[in-house]
Amino acid sequence: MKIITISREFGSGGRELGKRLADALGFHYYDTEIIREIAKETSFSEEYITSVTERGLSGFNVHFGRTFTPQVNQTAIDVLVAQHNVIKRLAEKGDSVFVGYGADVILKDLNPLKIFVCADVQYKLKRCREKNQADAHLSDREMIKQFNRIDSGRRHLHEQLASSEWGESKAYNLSVNTTGFEIKEIVPAVKEFALKWFEKTQNN
Amino acid sequence: MKIITISREFGSGGRELGKRLADALGFHYYDTEIIREIAKETSFSEEYITSVTERGLSGFNVHFGRTFTPQVNQTAIDVLVAQHNVIKRLAEKGDSVFVGYGADVILKDLNPLKIFVCADVQYKLKRCREKNQADAHLSDREMIKQFNRIDSGRRHLHEQLASSEWGESKAYNLSVNTTGFEIKEIVPAVKEFALKWFEKTQNN
Repeated sequence: MKIITISREFGSGGRELGKRLADALGFHYYDTEIIREIAKETSFSEEYITSVTERGLSGFNVHFGRTFTPQVNQTAIDVLVAQHNVIKRLAEKGDSVFVGYGADVILKDLNPLKIFVCADVQYKLKRCREKNQADAHLSDREMIKQFNRIDSGRRHLHEQLASSEWGESKAYNLSVNTTGFEIKEIVPAVKEFALKWFEKTQNN
Repeated sequence: MKIITISREFGSGGRELGKRLADALGFHYYDTEIIREIAKETSFSEEYITSVTERGLSGFNVHFGRTFTPQVNQTAIDVLVAQHNVIKRLAEKGDSVFVGYGADVILKDLNPLKIFVCADVQYKLKRCREKNQADAHLSDREMIKQFNRIDSGRRHLHEQLASSEWGESKAYNLSVNTTGFEIKEIVPAVKEFALKWFEKTQNN
């Protein structure tokens, strides 16, 4: 099975790159569909599932005798277990691109091509202003605060699952900084890299 | 002027990628030549220059009254100034690929395509065993220690010059993990990315 996983900074165009790559390669494409599948598998609302999958497990300390032990909400664990099951099940359906949700770590046994997508803050602001009318009332400062909040959740989730740092080059096969580009312009280079990757890894 | 800078983990094949890219694009190629040019410009030995350019300025604390002030050797500063001058002068000669020596930071006003090259430790060990007979007597553990020592010098040098972290995806336009590849297999994708980068940046 050929799998591409995309981890990305908020606003960097990672999702668009994922979709375009999936189109260019004829692969399935999954992002928020994962939330709907988890909702089917558990009885939780999509909002609750989103909050867990965006931030990972956040613990609170419980006092046992003289020690504090971090405890995690059981429902959050149920969501994470379902997230693993759903992503693995979708991956079995055929060649695919997964954007977000820790798929790079969850699918590591399938030797996915792991891509990280990032961009400079000015580029992300411009991109978000163009794409997202809902946040038009936010000042640049408020939007940057939002980027940092969302990315810190993604970092937290990654570092809970993996032994690498989120966003460090070594944790991925390819890291692309989209600053200065339209996403479609990057697709041919990434596709070329992906084809070579699958040529090498699928023959072993 | 079209400039590509390559920063790389020791043993990851960054130099080979740089040479092959320069060939593929018809660019000049510079790495240790920079040392020889600095030696011509200063009166220092190539060994001394290498030691400074590999590790950056390392300070020692001097006691002034009640405070300790970090002091840097004046000859080391002379080397770093010459390093800046040499790299800028070489860059003026025409389109080029620079491997190492902080060229990504020194040439930032020329808007270089900044590439980071890394690899998993097992891949780097294998690569070094194949390429470097001089270190054949070292155990894996000793070689890994050597990787870490050299890379920590590179990290130190980068972080003395730049405000970004060495090796984090955001500090570069493209980060390539060479694990699993022969370097020549990666060249077409990186070349494609580079051509698009210059198409965008040279027209502005």
